[in-house]
Amino acid sequence: MPDPLFHKIALIGIGLIGSSLARVIRREGLAGEIIVSTRSAETLARAEELGLGDRYFSRADEAVRDADLVIVSVPVGSSGSVAQEIAPALKKGCIVTDVGSTKRSVIAQMQPALPDHVHFIPGHPLAGTERSGPDAGFAELFENRWCIFTPLPGTDAGALEKLSEFWRRCGSNIEIMDADHHDMVLAIVSHLPHIIAYNIVGTADDLEAVTKSEVIKYSASGFRDFTRLAASDPTMWRDVCLHNKDAILEMLARFSEDLASLQRAIRWEDGDKLFEMFSRTRAVRRSIIEAGQEIDVPDFGRQVVEHPAGGKS
Amino acid sequence: MPDPLFHKIALIGIGLIGSSLARVIRREGLAGEIIVSTRSAETLARAEELGLGDRYFSRADEAVRDADLVIVSVPVGSSGSVAQEIAPALKKGCIVTDVGSTKRSVIAQMQPALPDHVHFIPGHPLAGTERSGPDAGFAELFENRWCIFTPLPGTDAGALEKLSEFWRRCGSNIEIMDADHHDMVLAIVSHLPHIIAYNIVGTADDLEAVTKSEVIKYSASGFRDFTRLAASDPTMWRDVCLHNKDAILEMLARFSEDLASLQRAIRWEDGDKLFEMFSRTRAVRRSIIEAGQEIDVPDFGRQVVEHPAGGKS
Repeated sequence: MPDPLFHKIALIGIGLIGSSLARVIRREGLAGEIIVSTRSAETLARAEELGLGDRYFSRADEAVRDADLVIVSVPVGSSGSVAQEIAPALKKGCIVTDVGSTKRSVIAQMQPALPDHVHFIPGHPLAGTERSGPDAGFAELFENRWCIFTPLPGTDAGALEKLSEFWRRCGSNIEIMDADHHDMVLAIVSHLPHIIAYNIVGTADDLEAVTKSEVIKYSASGFRDFTRLAASDPTMWRDVCLHNKDAILEMLARFSEDLASLQRAIRWEDGDKLFEMFSRTRAVRRSIIEAGQEIDVPDFGRQVVEHPAGGKS
Repeated sequence: MPDPLFHKIALIGIGLIGSSLARVIRREGLAGEIIVSTRSAETLARAEELGLGDRYFSRADEAVRDADLVIVSVPVGSSGSVAQEIAPALKKGCIVTDVGSTKRSVIAQMQPALPDHVHFIPGHPLAGTERSGPDAGFAELFENRWCIFTPLPGTDAGALEKLSEFWRRCGSNIEIMDADHHDMVLAIVSHLPHIIAYNIVGTADDLEAVTKSEVIKYSASGFRDFTRLAASDPTMWRDVCLHNKDAILEMLARFSEDLASLQRAIRWEDGDKLFEMFSRTRAVRRSIIEAGQEIDVPDFGRQVVEHPAGGKS
C-alpha cells in the first residue's frame, strides 16, 4: 500500500455517498484514519457494525478535529448548519468539501461559516443509486463517473489538485465549472428527471380507473423505469428542489411547453410531427453508451442479470 | 419433443416481437412449421440469414395459407391493411391474433376485414426492449411477463385456451380484460411513460445553456434512465399515440395537472408538501420488485453487469 493521501479523513454523513466513500477510502488506502460522524445514533451504530470507519462521533465538531480532509455528505439543506458546527474545530490548512447536488446554495450556506485558514472546495460526484443509508454504499460507486468541482475565486491550486487526486483514486474523472453552470446542467440531467419520475409515479398512484395492483402488475411495459428514480431519498430531493429552485423552474417550464406541443400533435393526429419527435431521441442514447455512461445491452441489462448464464439467443 | 401445438404458424412482421416469437417457437417446438413474412425485402432477407423460420414470404396472404395460427406483429396502424390482405387466404378454423399495444383500434381495424370462419383473438404480450428489428429478438423475452387477451363476445373457448397454452409455453402469464380497460391500463403503465421519456429527451436536446455533450457526459445522474424508453421504435410509438388517443390525452391531462401542483410547491418552497410527494413513491417500486416485475438490485443491476465478478462490497 502506498502512503495514504490524507492523514485523517472525516466523513460527515454516512448515507449512500458517505458510506461508499468510506469503503473506497479503505480499499484504496487513501487515509491513515477514517472518522465517521452522523447525528442519528441509529445510523452511527449501524456504520460501526459495518466497520466503515476507525472512530465514530455523533458530534461533527469532534469528528473533524485534526482531520486534513472533511467530506460533508448530507442533504444540501443541512450544509449550513454542519459548516457552523465544524468551523471552530477545523485544523488550519484542512480541505473541506461536500458532495451536494446543488452548488450555489451550498456555497452560500457554507462559505460564510468556514474560517479563512481552511480550503473550502465545493464538489459533486455524479453518482448514486435509488437506495440510501450506510448499507446501500459500495466501493465501486464512483468508478467511471464524473466528479465536478466548482472552486471559488482564489482557491489554492495545491489543495484542488490533492482533492482531485483523491477523487481520481476513487475511480472518478474530474471536471471544473462555475457553480451557476453546474446548477443549470444538473437541473436538466438529474433534477428534472427525478421530479418527472416522482410525478408520474404519483399520477399513476392516484388513478381510479386503473388499480394500484394493475399498475404494479403491468409495470414492465415502461412504468417501472420511472420507479427507480422515484424511489430515491425524499429528504435529499426535497432539499434539491428548494435549493436549486430557479434552474429547476426554468427546466420545468421548457418541459411543460414541449409536452403541450406533443399533446397537441396527438390531439390533432399529426403523425408526421410525432414521428419526427420520436426519431431524434434514439441518437442520444447511442451517444451516452459511446461515452461510457451507460451499458451497451438492452433493457439496462436486466435480461443479463435475470439470465446470468447468458441465455440470449 | 412433444407434438407441436400448431401445425403451421405464420408470423406476419418479424421485428423485436415477431423474431422473439420465432425463436421461442423453435426452442419450445410449438410449431411443425414456422412461416415468416414481412413486406421489407431487406428485413425478410435478414430473417432468413438468421434462420428464424422455415419458409419466407414478402406477401402476407401467401404466408398465412394453411396456417392454423397467424400472429400479426406490426405497428398498430398497419393492422387493418394486414387483415385485409390475409383475409381471403385464411384457413377455416385458423386462430388469428396480434401483439399490438392498443386494442380498441386493432379490433376496429381487423374484425370487419376477417372472415367469420376464423377465430380472431386480440392479444398483447407486455414485453419488449428499446431495440427493434429481427436481430433484436430473443427467446426469453416473454418469460414471466403478462400476455393480455381482449376477446370479443362469442369467442370460442377452445381457441382461447389453445392460444393461452401457446403463450404459457412462451413463458408468459395470461390475463383477460376488455379492450377499453386494456387501453386505459396501457396508457398509464406504458404509453404515458414512453411519451414523457421522448419529451424530456427532446427538451434536453433543445437547450442552449447546456450543451448536448454535457447532457450526454453527465447523464448517469438520472437522465439516462429516460433515454432507454426514448430509444424505442418511432413508427410503433407514432401509431400507439394515434390509436390510443383518448386514453393517452386523459393520462397526459392528469400528469400535467399533478406537475403543475408540484411546480407550485417548488416555487413557493413548500418543503412539507414536496417531502410528502416524494415519500409515497418508494413503496411502489418495492411492490413491483415483490411482484417479480423488476430485479431486486439497485440501479437496474447495471453495477452487477459492469462488475460481473460481483465487486459489490
